[in-house]
Amino acid sequence: MAGPLNAFVPDSSAYLAGAEAGALSGLTFAAKDIFDIAGHVTGCGNPHWLATHGPAESTAWVVQRLVEAGAAMVGKTITDELTRGIFGENMHYGTPVNPKAPGRVPGGSSSGSASAVAGELVDFALGSDTGGSVRVPSSFCGLYGLRPTHGRIPLDGMLLQAPSFDTIGWFARDAETFARVGSVILPQGPSVERAQRLVIADDAWDLAEPATRAALEPALAKLGALFASSSKVRLSPTGLEEWSGHQQVLQSREAWESARDWIDQVNPTFSFEVSDRYALARSVTDEQIVVAQAGRDAVNARMNEVFDGGDAVVCLPTTVAPAPPLGQRVSERHTLRLRNSALTSIAGNTGRPQISLPLAEVDGLPVGLSLLGDYGADERLIELAGEMGRLLE
Amino acid sequence: MAGPLNAFVPDSSAYLAGAEAGALSGLTFAAKDIFDIAGHVTGCGNPHWLATHGPAESTAWVVQRLVEAGAAMVGKTITDELTRGIFGENMHYGTPVNPKAPGRVPGGSSSGSASAVAGELVDFALGSDTGGSVRVPSSFCGLYGLRPTHGRIPLDGMLLQAPSFDTIGWFARDAETFARVGSVILPQGPSVERAQRLVIADDAWDLAEPATRAALEPALAKLGALFASSSKVRLSPTGLEEWSGHQQVLQSREAWESARDWIDQVNPTFSFEVSDRYALARSVTDEQIVVAQAGRDAVNARMNEVFDGGDAVVCLPTTVAPAPPLGQRVSERHTLRLRNSALTSIAGNTGRPQISLPLAEVDGLPVGLSLLGDYGADERLIELAGEMGRLLE
Repeated sequence: MAGPLNAFVPDSSAYLAGAEAGALSGLTFAAKDIFDIAGHVTGCGNPHWLATHGPAESTAWVVQRLVEAGAAMVGKTITDELTRGIFGENMHYGTPVNPKAPGRVPGGSSSGSASAVAGELVDFALGSDTGGSVRVPSSFCGLYGLRPTHGRIPLDGMLLQAPSFDTIGWFARDAETFARVGSVILPQGPSVERAQRLVIADDAWDLAEPATRAALEPALAKLGALFASSSKVRLSPTGLEEWSGHQQVLQSREAWESARDWIDQVNPTFSFEVSDRYALARSVTDEQIVVAQAGRDAVNARMNEVFDGGDAVVCLPTTVAPAPPLGQRVSERHTLRLRNSALTSIAGNTGRPQISLPLAEVDGLPVGLSLLGDYGADERLIELAGEMGRLLE
Repeated sequence: MAGPLNAFVPDSSAYLAGAEAGALSGLTFAAKDIFDIAGHVTGCGNPHWLATHGPAESTAWVVQRLVEAGAAMVGKTITDELTRGIFGENMHYGTPVNPKAPGRVPGGSSSGSASAVAGELVDFALGSDTGGSVRVPSSFCGLYGLRPTHGRIPLDGMLLQAPSFDTIGWFARDAETFARVGSVILPQGPSVERAQRLVIADDAWDLAEPATRAALEPALAKLGALFASSSKVRLSPTGLEEWSGHQQVLQSREAWESARDWIDQVNPTFSFEVSDRYALARSVTDEQIVVAQAGRDAVNARMNEVFDGGDAVVCLPTTVAPAPPLGQRVSERHTLRLRNSALTSIAGNTGRPQISLPLAEVDGLPVGLSLLGDYGADERLIELAGEMGRLLE
């Protein structure tokens, strides 16, 4: 079985002791089972993947870096199949428990990592974020979670889903631990000035359910104190759902290209929902790609305007609502997935960093507030997370 | 495990003793795991189906009939998931062995039943045939197998896939046993005159691979001796593949309607190939249905002409070639499936009976010769099977 909280993969015996006297010594972490650990098969959430791949020859860059900095890797966590999901229900291995929202999904695809951190089994955990797979479980499980600037953290030794969107992220329960991890795995970038302008993304807030919006507004009100100015802006002239559609098309095509040869060879079992998305992905036409790429370019042009000069941070809800109940119908989930994607694809399409902060609850269920920064502003977002925490104490 | 030949479902403890002194006393049989056995869960080839259904309250009509006639039901056999396959590879339970073609698929979806009979574990076995699921494994495993007249054998207690195509069939190694079973499960119909005309379906023979055609021709030549006359006819003015396309569309829609509610509720794991077919089935439009129904009507009109008066039997290859190797790519299989469907859908679209006879081999691999009769001619086809066997002795 998958151990406590159903967070870990079955038969995971992977363990890497942390180096002594490093920046992260004394911390434990878990890694989503898409990161290679030398000598172990990376399972990627699917038993046929596990059965048709050999042990990894080397350990993923990011895992190695953390271990060398003193953190101990104590286990591999359950993921949605090949990272193709956003709710965290794996039909082969079961759903990791959401300790902060009993009876509800943990969010995915970095489901086991979020569960293990929220349930205090480890201090922090690694995930990946292609379409929201760190930010959504952060929101649902009441955690800090970052999708970094695209390309900032090397993906070596990690399963790729859709390379023009794939990133590595991580979870922690407190901003301080979160920052300690970041200082190790974010390669030294150019020093970035502190953001002066807060931009409240009106159209993103309009997508949130009223109770979620109301729950997040007190934190939003205090956030203004950390900025010289604040303004409300509609990000998308064509609608955030339309923007999100471009990512859907492009990500689908890339995901199909990543997996098609293996699928054709192995005929693996997936949940119907996952197969269905691959079947749709396969049917994406070249004409749709051309339209979506032009759409993505337009998103980028508009977001460059919004950030104008790089001194802005955009604030939005991480998800439209807290975690939905376990066991909903596929068709119900489909609609909710599209609504959340309208929020998560702003960072996805543009490759900008976004951090989710666990600053609100709706009827006791966590929901995250998100800060979206300009390219390379990862550290600035992490600093803001710490400042917000102190402000709300 | 699934026992010898991987033919039986895991943990199958279903057993029904045959009545004493019946027409089938002394015979053993197995039943595809889509037939209800009272007190046991009918698994239908999918572990999520098994897990989400309770034990059957009563035993399927056809199983009960056989047991009352003296045959002992000794086990439930592996099937393609929800009968949605034609090659017999089940990605959850494994592929039943084809004892007559080592290293090759057994054919499906009645894969375990064909395997158990070909491997002499039982005297006969029950399958179902919607798109070829008895005829194709008969051809691949060197067995007698019948798709009866649609509606002739009651389907009570059997999983339905596509009701306007679904039938119950069975397998045996010899024509005599085959006929004994038929005498029990084919309800008394009107007495049908012996066929006088042999019709050789030219366009069906053109679809067979040259080696398969050559292997079947000696049996075809002798078959003529059983008829007063023989003629060559092209069945389809628009091509057998076009005819087959109508069944694909109509069967897909019916299969989706049969399964959609359960799929939406459970999000079950299927092999990618099975999910992919459901995903395509879901996308069938009402306009396509109208066209396909008109096409099916045209097939029926043309086949009524061919049978004109009911004294004909149409001869064709059961499959275009012997069993393909295990482990081919999904994409390779797709093409082969369509080619075989062009042969099997003649009976499927029209609801006529078709028997496959194990009368040839290609390089040691079995391949079947098929006789297609008019409505209600099931017994006549079974008699012809016996006569052909004696003729070839």
